[in-house]
Amino acid sequence: MLKAEIYITLKKTVADPQGLTIKHALDSLGYKEVEEVRIGKLVTVKLNINDKKEAEQRLNEMCKKLLANPIIEDYSFKIEEV
Amino acid sequence: MLKAEIYITLKKTVADPQGLTIKHALDSLGYKEVEEVRIGKLVTVKLNINDKKEAEQRLNEMCKKLLANPIIEDYSFKIEEV
Repeated sequence: MLKAEIYITLKKTVADPQGLTIKHALDSLGYKEVEEVRIGKLVTVKLNINDKKEAEQRLNEMCKKLLANPIIEDYSFKIEEV
Repeated sequence: MLKAEIYITLKKTVADPQGLTIKHALDSLGYKEVEEVRIGKLVTVKLNINDKKEAEQRLNEMCKKLLANPIIEDYSFKIEEV
């Protein structure tokens, strides 16, 4: 069994109003040191296979087809055995 | 300048209907090896300070006060220099 953590983030050029709102909220709570906040998704997937190479290929497909929007988002993942 | 990646996940005992929906969608796309999908948030924060110890303490506060809901969510983070 493998477990993958997939990190999906907005591309740098894409505006992130949710992150901006959180930055302002932190600012008004006194966290003036916060320069930027960007919000992304963390998708944890358990896979019933043991071959990391195969998992990598399948996860790339899943990200491109369903999990991430390649026009506005980047993704990366790491795989570990569980 | 420090950059923190904050990982916010639902506690294991909390149901994740969004994750379940994605699992079903992956299943119908032919990814039968997917056993479980859980959805969390990835918050990237740039901090205008250089002391990692101080950043750690401030980030813990931010997570408890605003970013995570400690009743249903767990959080962790890693800090790096940028």
